[in-house]
Amino acid sequence: MYVHQVQIRVCYADTDQMGYVYYGNYARFFEIGRVESLRNLGFSYKQLEQSGIFMPVYEYTTKYLQPATYDDLLEVKVIVRSLPKVRMLFEYEIYNEQHTLLTTGSTTLVFINGQTKKPCQAPQALLQHLHLYFS
Amino acid sequence: MYVHQVQIRVCYADTDQMGYVYYGNYARFFEIGRVESLRNLGFSYKQLEQSGIFMPVYEYTTKYLQPATYDDLLEVKVIVRSLPKVRMLFEYEIYNEQHTLLTTGSTTLVFINGQTKKPCQAPQALLQHLHLYFS
Amino acid sequence: MYVHQVQIRVCYADTDQMGYVYYGNYARFFEIGRVESLRNLGFSYKQLEQSGIFMPVYEYTTKYLQPATYDDLLEVKVIVRSLPKVRMLFEYEIYNEQHTLLTTGSTTLVFINGQTKKPCQAPQALLQHLHLYFS
Amino acid sequence: MYVHQVQIRVCYADTDQMGYVYYGNYARFFEIGRVESLRNLGFSYKQLEQSGIFMPVYEYTTKYLQPATYDDLLEVKVIVRSLPKVRMLFEYEIYNEQHTLLTTGSTTLVFINGQTKKPCQAPQALLQHLHLYFS
Repeated sequence: MYVHQVQIRVCYADTDQMGYVYYGNYARFFEIGRVESLRNLGFSYKQLEQSGIFMPVYEYTTKYLQPATYDDLLEVKVIVRSLPKVRMLFEYEIYNEQHTLLTTGSTTLVFINGQTKKPCQAPQALLQHLHLYFS
Repeated sequence: MYVHQVQIRVCYADTDQMGYVYYGNYARFFEIGRVESLRNLGFSYKQLEQSGIFMPVYEYTTKYLQPATYDDLLEVKVIVRSLPKVRMLFEYEIYNEQHTLLTTGSTTLVFINGQTKKPCQAPQALLQHLHLYFS
Repeated sequence: MYVHQVQIRVCYADTDQMGYVYYGNYARFFEIGRVESLRNLGFSYKQLEQSGIFMPVYEYTTKYLQPATYDDLLEVKVIVRSLPKVRMLFEYEIYNEQHTLLTTGSTTLVFINGQTKKPCQAPQALLQHLHLYFS
Repeated sequence: MYVHQVQIRVCYADTDQMGYVYYGNYARFFEIGRVESLRNLGFSYKQLEQSGIFMPVYEYTTKYLQPATYDDLLEVKVIVRSLPKVRMLFEYEIYNEQHTLLTTGSTTLVFINGQTKKPCQAPQALLQHLHLYFS
């Protein structure tokens, strides 16, 4: 299992008139979490795209347990429970500064060959970086 | 069952560098769909909030089957399959102009009393508007 | 002078915890206004890009006179005062349903050749569509 | 003169299909810059609102000199050139990792009494924190 955490400060742009983070804005938090979790492995999503492989999101779920509010310093915990094949599942937990679990979520991304637009296997470079956490 | 459809034009702000609609931006499309589906019933979400009842999103899922792209005129189909109690489930299907199903989704919203911040029953006014479709 | 108006409904995603439309979200309203003003001329921005010409924004200004609020049905007035050369200036006025002027703005866009990434002249097709309004 | 800098990583949500940061998304970068510049002074915008004073944006300008692109680690430089009275002017410069100036901008914010919704003087606490930089 590979786990990584990042901190994100809620800004005004994220809030809505209920005084909470708008439900659609967590997708950005999860994106930042998963890209930074890859960077922490030594793996750059930007370079992946430059090498011709893209990772669009195929499935996305979220459960909003407690609202996140303006200026909260959120802890976004990213969890990868299994080695990716043609898909990669990221799970997320968001905590506030009082360590209250606010949100859970998951995204399934697919590896796509940019030329053929067809699904492909997870790149070896990524698997090598991840293997350490799954042995 | 209550079904309502709205059209939404994909704008540049919605796209990302993959040339697709960013996966987080569908939440806005679904919001527009469900608010307009309520308005079509003669029920204003704005007035609901003014009466002291709020409907935060509790659960949200999406499946991205095909990408939506810039300038697409999307058809957002909103489906309510059962009368709400303390929660209300909206399901969504997004089609492009070629009637290809691009995205499916669902949101579960809870009715909250703005004063007590506690869950409450769906307001009678909404149930009256919906009853016609469930008899 | 060419003037065109579009209506935009403020959605929850647009608001912030002040209960107003977040100041950064007007850029989207202006984008929708200017693209629809071009479409109304018979000119598609999407087709322009497909022909290899892009129009990135070079300069952007806004003045927020009165706040726009949730569920407002805004009137976005787009004004083109002169024929474009290598740049095109759009001016905007946003009104609410009570015809109160809420926001003024302007964007200067440049025509860019997608291959060379250099500025180029406004395409003839656009000038032909606009000429009618400037004679 | 008070100057403060923050770093912001461009995420996928920020990009558009031109492969650049969407012109409307810089407003968020500027917001983060100015709120962090206040925090660095020991002044919390969140607490300001809790004390009943709000700072809506009155005027906003941006010039896009060079595009910011995905995964850029931007340096947002915030400049306050004079002590605020009923308005506060923030100027901004955004640089990429190669120290190229990409964007300049400015926002004028007004101090508003949340009760009366009328303009008011900049709070003493803020002036005290700023005085050090203007003597």
